[in-house]
Amino acid sequence: MSLRFTEEYPEINGAFSFEVTRVLYTARSPFQKIEIVETTHLGKVLLLDDLVMFTEKDEFVYHEMISHVPLFVHPEPKRILVVGGGDGGTVRECLRHDTVERIDLVEIDEMVSQACIQYVPSLAGKLLSDKVNCRFLDAVEYVRKTSETYDVILIDSTDPVSVGEGLFTREFYRNCFNCLTDHGVLVAQSESPAWAPELVQSISRKLRAVFPNVHFYQAHIPTYPSGHWAFAFASKTLHPLKDYQEERYRNAGLSFKYYNSDLHFGAFALPTFFRELVDAV
Amino acid sequence: MSLRFTEEYPEINGAFSFEVTRVLYTARSPFQKIEIVETTHLGKVLLLDDLVMFTEKDEFVYHEMISHVPLFVHPEPKRILVVGGGDGGTVRECLRHDTVERIDLVEIDEMVSQACIQYVPSLAGKLLSDKVNCRFLDAVEYVRKTSETYDVILIDSTDPVSVGEGLFTREFYRNCFNCLTDHGVLVAQSESPAWAPELVQSISRKLRAVFPNVHFYQAHIPTYPSGHWAFAFASKTLHPLKDYQEERYRNAGLSFKYYNSDLHFGAFALPTFFRELVDAV
Repeated sequence: MSLRFTEEYPEINGAFSFEVTRVLYTARSPFQKIEIVETTHLGKVLLLDDLVMFTEKDEFVYHEMISHVPLFVHPEPKRILVVGGGDGGTVRECLRHDTVERIDLVEIDEMVSQACIQYVPSLAGKLLSDKVNCRFLDAVEYVRKTSETYDVILIDSTDPVSVGEGLFTREFYRNCFNCLTDHGVLVAQSESPAWAPELVQSISRKLRAVFPNVHFYQAHIPTYPSGHWAFAFASKTLHPLKDYQEERYRNAGLSFKYYNSDLHFGAFALPTFFRELVDAV
Repeated sequence: MSLRFTEEYPEINGAFSFEVTRVLYTARSPFQKIEIVETTHLGKVLLLDDLVMFTEKDEFVYHEMISHVPLFVHPEPKRILVVGGGDGGTVRECLRHDTVERIDLVEIDEMVSQACIQYVPSLAGKLLSDKVNCRFLDAVEYVRKTSETYDVILIDSTDPVSVGEGLFTREFYRNCFNCLTDHGVLVAQSESPAWAPELVQSISRKLRAVFPNVHFYQAHIPTYPSGHWAFAFASKTLHPLKDYQEERYRNAGLSFKYYNSDLHFGAFALPTFFRELVDAV
């Protein structure tokens, strides 16, 4: 028997599928269906409600790009809020920065983190770090009520359906803005400009209603729909290129599989159709 | 009944599929199986031996990027050789440059061009232009024997299997080099750095054995395997960024859906793993 996982791509009446060698974990949490499977070529894969959240093969792209772009723009990122991100990949990348003193992870579904800690420690292992404070709560509520402030907020959410929906509203962005320090930066995963242009445009519109500076950047993530993925960079004062901390990047001596100094700039050079989508709002 | 096309992605034991509303054309040429189908969301799609060659939805990315990057680096591209490219998309983009006086298209399979002219005139219509000279020949033979010279050669080939195989050899690149004028530039579609790294590396190695300057760039093409696509820029003297013809770009007054001046630079900013792949040869 050969097992196969298929993700539907309704945006194009299409689908993406791959062979599964073993189902490592399967459960229904109060929020969603959670599965971790092993594959022949993509490593372990986390599926939430039948959508690929990460594959070990290309998770480095997403996690490096959501983290290092803002962390090499903020002059001294000490306190980070990760919204969602229960798999731990974003936390793992943030902890590579010496400046980081504490990361609050606000994830609604504790079972995702527990499963990833057990089955994919390469991603989730760092959730157990002393610098990381996991709060298994609804982030919508959390940012409305907290008195904590953050230098950087990373919205590492699922798609804007069911459990992730509240993380794509103007009110949520406003509350994030209010939790940011004076030179605070927010980065949000922002879906596919190629196959979900209206969604990317709506994220742009809502962020621009709240933040004075909004810029989009992109990355190649083969196992996400279309492989063309957008991130929004929104800030109170900082510019993603003019305020780039070149020297801190060089001195950090870190090596990345996707991110580098040239790529930081290149990622903000958008194709015309994408630029028109996010600027014309 | 619902029709569905499936492209196998053997690189990852995976597949990509989409709904087909109508089969417009199907034939077996002496070289390959040719099909043109209509879809709900991707427009018309050309399939050669069950691989997607273009979809109307995203062909603009590939055709703009293979053409305008070299044509805005060469100071005065007059004579162009397109190798393969029987669907006409690359010719269509090249003809937008006023400097271009003549394009020789050397395509092995006349039936591909005939089918595209009939069923997808938005791509192939320009094959009938007075400036275009279609030669339905094996390009491997052609570049070995011709006494013509070209300012720009664009290798718009299928994958390096069966009919396309000879277009990925050192000997072929050497013969192309010999057909180029003093400041000639060659660009070759170069497969996926994410899912076919050995192939991209081998293209790099072979081109570097022939050309003094070789640089890679990339684009997002959702309906190609992994969506992360490489192009090689190889030249006798010109540098893809230092020799960029900014002024000609501005004066041309052309509008593109993917390509623009910033993106020209951004496309050469490679992810670390891709850079290491093509530089370490």
